[in-house]
Amino acid sequence: MNIRSGSGGPLGGPTIAEILDSHLSGGGSPTRTARRVADAIAARGEDGTWISTVAGDDLVRAAADLEARPGARALPLYGIPFGVKDSIDVAGVPTTLSCPDYAYTPDTTAPAVQRLLDAGALYVGKTNLDQFATGLNGTRTPYPLPRSVFGNEMISGGSSSGSALAVALGEVPFAVATDTAGSGRVPAALNGIVGYKPSRGLISAVGLVPACKSLDCITVMADGIDDVDRVMAVMAARDEADPWSRSPGADHRGGLTVGLPPMSQLEFFGDDALREAHQTFRERLSHMRFPVPVTIEEISLEPFLAAGELLYAGPWVAERLVVFGEFLAAHRDSIHPVVREILEGATKYTAVDAFAAMQRLAELRAEVGRVWDGIDVLVIPTIGRTFTVAEVLAQPLATNTMLGHYTHFGNLLDLTGVAVPQGLTADGRPHSVMVLGNALHDDAVLQMAANLLDEPRHHPGHQHPADTDSEATTRAS
Amino acid sequence: MNIRSGSGGPLGGPTIAEILDSHLSGGGSPTRTARRVADAIAARGEDGTWISTVAGDDLVRAAADLEARPGARALPLYGIPFGVKDSIDVAGVPTTLSCPDYAYTPDTTAPAVQRLLDAGALYVGKTNLDQFATGLNGTRTPYPLPRSVFGNEMISGGSSSGSALAVALGEVPFAVATDTAGSGRVPAALNGIVGYKPSRGLISAVGLVPACKSLDCITVMADGIDDVDRVMAVMAARDEADPWSRSPGADHRGGLTVGLPPMSQLEFFGDDALREAHQTFRERLSHMRFPVPVTIEEISLEPFLAAGELLYAGPWVAERLVVFGEFLAAHRDSIHPVVREILEGATKYTAVDAFAAMQRLAELRAEVGRVWDGIDVLVIPTIGRTFTVAEVLAQPLATNTMLGHYTHFGNLLDLTGVAVPQGLTADGRPHSVMVLGNALHDDAVLQMAANLLDEPRHHPGHQHPADTDSEATTRAS
Repeated sequence: MNIRSGSGGPLGGPTIAEILDSHLSGGGSPTRTARRVADAIAARGEDGTWISTVAGDDLVRAAADLEARPGARALPLYGIPFGVKDSIDVAGVPTTLSCPDYAYTPDTTAPAVQRLLDAGALYVGKTNLDQFATGLNGTRTPYPLPRSVFGNEMISGGSSSGSALAVALGEVPFAVATDTAGSGRVPAALNGIVGYKPSRGLISAVGLVPACKSLDCITVMADGIDDVDRVMAVMAARDEADPWSRSPGADHRGGLTVGLPPMSQLEFFGDDALREAHQTFRERLSHMRFPVPVTIEEISLEPFLAAGELLYAGPWVAERLVVFGEFLAAHRDSIHPVVREILEGATKYTAVDAFAAMQRLAELRAEVGRVWDGIDVLVIPTIGRTFTVAEVLAQPLATNTMLGHYTHFGNLLDLTGVAVPQGLTADGRPHSVMVLGNALHDDAVLQMAANLLDEPRHHPGHQHPADTDSEATTRAS
Repeated sequence: MNIRSGSGGPLGGPTIAEILDSHLSGGGSPTRTARRVADAIAARGEDGTWISTVAGDDLVRAAADLEARPGARALPLYGIPFGVKDSIDVAGVPTTLSCPDYAYTPDTTAPAVQRLLDAGALYVGKTNLDQFATGLNGTRTPYPLPRSVFGNEMISGGSSSGSALAVALGEVPFAVATDTAGSGRVPAALNGIVGYKPSRGLISAVGLVPACKSLDCITVMADGIDDVDRVMAVMAARDEADPWSRSPGADHRGGLTVGLPPMSQLEFFGDDALREAHQTFRERLSHMRFPVPVTIEEISLEPFLAAGELLYAGPWVAERLVVFGEFLAAHRDSIHPVVREILEGATKYTAVDAFAAMQRLAELRAEVGRVWDGIDVLVIPTIGRTFTVAEVLAQPLATNTMLGHYTHFGNLLDLTGVAVPQGLTADGRPHSVMVLGNALHDDAVLQMAANLLDEPRHHPGHQHPADTDSEATTRAS
């Protein structure tokens, strides 16, 4: 078990490294892991985490096949179970997008998932999501409605609700999710786990049913950064079939300059306990000891938030109709009422609106680019407040907008980011901070995230000199 | 006079270097140059080149002021006269866009033009254009309708019709133009001069009334590459007020790999003389001697042309309404009928159309990116055929589409390109080839263009070893 300081998850399961160790040492085996996972899922019943799962016996058989395959033990994810958000294709399994009437059964597995299978990982099942990946709250599904592992009727967050739960419940050490405007980070925050949205294009998005194709990323949910690194080492690859595909940036060397906006620019929507937790985190941050010199720099969050406004009050929602427009026209009643309202609202935007918004975005990208000239990473809350299911059902659009306050802008501005659990509020809810970086600065972002989890990081290409531990210094601005 | 081999211009004037030499040696002076320019313009009368000019006496007075200014003789464009396309602001001069009812008088000069003035250049006047820079033919103007310097009622090309003419007539050695889909290259081709469209963002577009803001470039028209280099050395600069602003790429070192599509992929729209001229050029190319090793590689033009189709049959025309939509609604009758028809047609596009087209463009950009992996520059015709004014007036849209066949895709695909005169057809019309390169590969493009003009190039940072002259080699593909 891996309940690391600060992670705060109430359950948690073994990490990838721990499972691999047990498989290779003989303390465990892929078949025993498969049986444990199947039993854990079965014990929870229909809790809204999974939309479909491999039957327990089939999962054990797949694990046994793996055990029998020559050379399999050398694979980097030998027998590691994982879940896949149900907007991503796995051959022979229906892709539902939480809309049964939309479902189809693909012949081909998404290349990102295929790479995991080829690396010895065990596919467990498809996880629940807000329908068409449209939502950040987890309530927009015809399947059982998931709740946060932290209880008290708190939402799971979305749209990658099930992927976050499967990890937070300790059923699988990692899950494949997606992020178009926060879908891979918000549910991580609400379930006390790590949600990593790589720079767009590092993971092939082929075989993902697009939400906004120009913004979509496949993402990783896990319990720590070492697990994220292990999954990324397998999943990240150029793919000529994905026009946004690109290679990772260089490793980050040397110290880290961390941008923090003034607390006065942070919005907690009346959630005083989360505000307090974040304030406490920032005080802690200034005294943390880091393996590299860390300098703190005050920056303005305004151009970032302005880009977020463009997303939720602008024409990008119309990009969803490129994929779902035909289905909306033909099967209006098959769509969740809130999702339908959003999609129908998108038809009002003209091409002029789209070009005007893109011009404005270009201005904001240039402005934000100058912020990145001065910092390596930006650290802000992942979400400003939590909600109960009842609160979201009563005000589905307003609550969703508040949930995306810190995540909406990330994809539009071509950033990379990771939600990092940072303990609990005074009343027992998870507090998550988000480390953001400019495109292809993933290594700096993951380094900072590992620092915040007090997690040593030894991914290939990285050495932290053990003798440089130093406190953060605040630069006068 | 500078009638260099292959340029083919019937008139032509002195180059920047020649004028500078005369100003510094005492053989000439800025005031004498100013008088010569004023007289040459006056002698032509209202020929559709200029929309407004500085009065002759005022131009001479400005030149005299320059002569009297201490240190002015050291300026890189000391007393060099130039014209500015009338979609770019010069303080105190109406910006008309060839639409008198749209005209306004700005208080501020566009920074790109201001840099020329600061370098000692003499502003002569505003040049004619297709209204709102919407057109590639030169006939969409309420001012006198320009004709190519090659006569026979041939169109000047557009939208930078007047800028091309002012240079081709030898009135000014260079002119500032723009290019959104070919406006800086097509009229250069029709008037036997050089039209250089830099990578977007090298020249600030502040103070340019946008056509499609995300695609617009300020460009340079001149008689040769040395002049282009001299102007770019002054005009190119980062500008924080232009969100697309960026720094030039590195200088190109070593040999050049030149992509050529098969002749069967080239379209001349029934213009057999231009086809023949281009065929002859390609035969000549394989025997030319170059200062660096040149390798020829066959590539497919198809993904480039597919992007061009997206532009002229897709939603980008709606981007023009971001600027002109309000004026169209309020002053419909003030707009040229053809331009009005185009703008009104643009209102039909939805945001869904815009996002779908941008997704398709992303695919084509990725495909074209792989072509650039194998070549440094691409050489194709600038235009496939020429038209008379009567032909364009009879079929304004169809002829314009043919004119843009090779230029439409350049801005969408974020390319840099230069139209290079290559002599005449058998029936005395100009033949122009276009050298294209991927974004920020401007130096390779200009090197190749200089090679094709048989023009030594000595811009800062470049040395051509004199002893490496070699014939092009064709690589088996």
